[in-house]
Amino acid sequence: SGSMEASKFSDNYHEVLKQLKIIYSQKMHEVEQRYHFDEFHGQTLKRSDFEAKPMVLLLGQYSVGKTSFIEYLLKMKFPGERVGPEPTTDRFVAVMYGDEEQIIPGNALSVDEDQPFGGTNQFGSSFLSKFEASKCPASILKNLTLVDTPGVLSGEKQRLGRAYDFVKVVEWFASKCDLILLLFDAHKLDISDEFKEAIEALRGNDDKVRVVLNKCDMVNTQQLMRVYGALMWSLGKVIRTPEVLRVYLGSFWDKPYAPQGKENEKLFDAETKDLLEDLLSLPRNSAVRKVNELVKRARLVRCHAHIISHLREKMPVLWGKDATKAELIQNLAREFQEIERLHKIPPGDFPNVQRMQEDLKLHDFSEFNKMSERLFTQIDDVLSRDLPRLMKLVTPKTEQLSHNPFS
Amino acid sequence: SGSMEASKFSDNYHEVLKQLKIIYSQKMHEVEQRYHFDEFHGQTLKRSDFEAKPMVLLLGQYSVGKTSFIEYLLKMKFPGERVGPEPTTDRFVAVMYGDEEQIIPGNALSVDEDQPFGGTNQFGSSFLSKFEASKCPASILKNLTLVDTPGVLSGEKQRLGRAYDFVKVVEWFASKCDLILLLFDAHKLDISDEFKEAIEALRGNDDKVRVVLNKCDMVNTQQLMRVYGALMWSLGKVIRTPEVLRVYLGSFWDKPYAPQGKENEKLFDAETKDLLEDLLSLPRNSAVRKVNELVKRARLVRCHAHIISHLREKMPVLWGKDATKAELIQNLAREFQEIERLHKIPPGDFPNVQRMQEDLKLHDFSEFNKMSERLFTQIDDVLSRDLPRLMKLVTPKTEQLSHNPFS
Ligand SMILES: Nc1ncnc2c1ncn2[C@@H]1O[C@H](COP(=O)(O)OP(=O)(O)OP(=O)(O)O)[C@@H](O)[C@H]1O
Ligand SMILES: Nc1ncnc2c1ncn2[C@@H]1O[C@H](COP(=O)(O)OP(=O)(O)OP(=O)(O)O)[C@@H](O)[C@H]1O
Ligand SMILES: [Mg+2]
Ligand SMILES: [Mg+2]
Repeated sequence: SGSMEASKFSDNYHEVLKQLKIIYSQKMHEVEQRYHFDEFHGQTLKRSDFEAKPMVLLLGQYSVGKTSFIEYLLKMKFPGERVGPEPTTDRFVAVMYGDEEQIIPGNALSVDEDQPFGGTNQFGSSFLSKFEASKCPASILKNLTLVDTPGVLSGEKQRLGRAYDFVKVVEWFASKCDLILLLFDAHKLDISDEFKEAIEALRGNDDKVRVVLNKCDMVNTQQLMRVYGALMWSLGKVIRTPEVLRVYLGSFWDKPYAPQGKENEKLFDAETKDLLEDLLSLPRNSAVRKVNELVKRARLVRCHAHIISHLREKMPVLWGKDATKAELIQNLAREFQEIERLHKIPPGDFPNVQRMQEDLKLHDFSEFNKMSERLFTQIDDVLSRDLPRLMKLVTPKTEQLSHNPFS
Repeated sequence: SGSMEASKFSDNYHEVLKQLKIIYSQKMHEVEQRYHFDEFHGQTLKRSDFEAKPMVLLLGQYSVGKTSFIEYLLKMKFPGERVGPEPTTDRFVAVMYGDEEQIIPGNALSVDEDQPFGGTNQFGSSFLSKFEASKCPASILKNLTLVDTPGVLSGEKQRLGRAYDFVKVVEWFASKCDLILLLFDAHKLDISDEFKEAIEALRGNDDKVRVVLNKCDMVNTQQLMRVYGALMWSLGKVIRTPEVLRVYLGSFWDKPYAPQGKENEKLFDAETKDLLEDLLSLPRNSAVRKVNELVKRARLVRCHAHIISHLREKMPVLWGKDATKAELIQNLAREFQEIERLHKIPPGDFPNVQRMQEDLKLHDFSEFNKMSERLFTQIDDVLSRDLPRLMKLVTPKTEQLSHNPFS
């Protein structure tokens, strides 16, 4: 359909990007460095992180139709693509725009400064040999990158077959992506423990998650209701938010609906239209989302700087360093509360206590930097002035204000 | 439709009832009395408890269409019935069979030995003045009793308007009923905290609960999907079982479908048919369910007898009775574990610890009866011989075996 070409970046997209890069490199980066932010919360941002196209991650049990769905969006096959009833896709594939068809292997991809995949280095060769980019000239890829993934398997099979930590990798892609599609098969609904784990790893990125109930045309209406109901019943328990996830019901491939599904043709068509609009609005709203992501990061940077300097101040000058460190880690939750009170940091900005406790064990607290008035003012400024100003630029309409992270 | 008349009690219904009454009065009742069962877990069973027709309880926020649904099943209005968009039904109404139309007020009802409502006495006059039976000659009532309820209101309104404990009353009716229908309005979905509380009070009776999503024809298909999805998402969190509740989608009254709902006519018709079959199978399966209920009770009686005699054995002969009692109550969970181990009682048979702790405070442990070999053997016999034998009588078909409580 013609509407699939209508996708466009917003007019001020490039101006906003420029401003974001300036704010990050001139103000935030210095704070991150002084307080070893990257050693706790992931790598320093690169140019490619800002300039990357919106990414859509597809997740699901094997054979639910992830690869077929991508083919449907592209209106063509992508290099290396394989579709089939058995577990077929055996790797992560970033399907990207290219005038020529080309496959770029994971190891090469992870060192390409122009690509936002530098972070995959941490998963080592065992992962990188199961990761590639597939370039092809589908027009939708001019504005979007799609990430195909291997289907989740159950139990032993998954553990034996994979030499890398699937859930960790999913978590990394989820944080980098703009939209996460969870695909389910209405004809064969199944949420294995492994998939449940992967879904749980999306926590914190709930706002990006959408659900696709695929192959809906293969069951009759009453069966569809039972399957859909069971899906929502179970998902609500895994994703703990009270807000209900948007589910798109339909059959997302190039073939006509199966006879059983004919009676819901109108519904499936309407849902397909909505899903495509959701996808195609990504570039248009990309500027807002990039500001939003940097706000999230700036909040964490500010909080992190306070945590590190706070721990530094609590260290003794001479003796008892190890004991003090152990005690501080042990009582980290209490220290967080103190920081919250002293520096008026919202509790929601703090990182996960357990993970922070783990990470802190590896550091020498007396080497931490003390607080710096200048830097603390600088990051406060980013949050109270620079980013809100940019936010105004990207949210002219009131309807978008509900996404305003400052509210 | 003709099928609505087809409802019938099973052939051996009366023989099974007779046997159940014998087992209860000759074997279980003696154990209940010796260990004060009624002071902990509700009244001694009467003839009317065995002979009562299957009862269906209707629950829902106000105006979801509970009363209209009953009218639809009866194909007539029942005495005292009122239907309207504002909160209308202001009382519990047992809609029962009678050759003549008649209303019997709650106080009278609660002392009628022929009716299974003796237990409502505990809620006092403030409740009984809001409870009545409405008799009318609708043929479906020959095999079923329907219990209409006042719509759940939110917050202050509910608290101010009602002089009795709504949730406790719902709990009582739920335990006496054979089927519980939770009605929701697809046009105006709303689960108030008060309704959530009422749903939570159904725990332990989950197997009886069905959901009716009413007025589905008043929204279009996409809206219906969103509403239905949201309902399942939320219900799954309130009702914690992994098994998905059966939801019937449709419009359950005498009027034709609204124009928006025309496209789902086939679905609604099929769902209505299923719901009616579910209701009309109640009398047919009434014998199985009555055996099932008595098995549940016998398990609780056995467990209760062990608890009471166990606590009695732990009491000192002379001094320190109060301190020992306090300690036993405090550590009741541990005592339960000991009983579980010593007497091989399945953990699932034990009553709620907190409630038992409350109830025990009111008793003098040294007046409790000690264990009686004879009675313990007697109740074991009921569970291992008498009731299984009866169960064989009522489950000739293999498909019903999955409901066998002994499995
Ligand atoms: N909408 C659809 N309706 C019916 N069948 C479909 C649909 N989409 C895909 N299929 C079929 O389902 C099977 C699996 O499809 P596909 O390989 O795209 O799934 P996948 O999720 O990518 O699986 P894997 O995880 O193994 O890579 C194929 O046989 C494909 O033809
Ligand atoms: N299936 C239906 N579709 C559309 N409207 C309905 C349907 N059933 C009932 N109504 C309308 O909804 C309103 C409430 O109906 P009714 O009084 O039966 O609800 P109720 O649940 O008994 O309410 P209350 O708790 O106040 O007694 C009435 O105006 C009735 O005509
Ligand atoms: Mg695939
Ligand atoms: Mg009513």
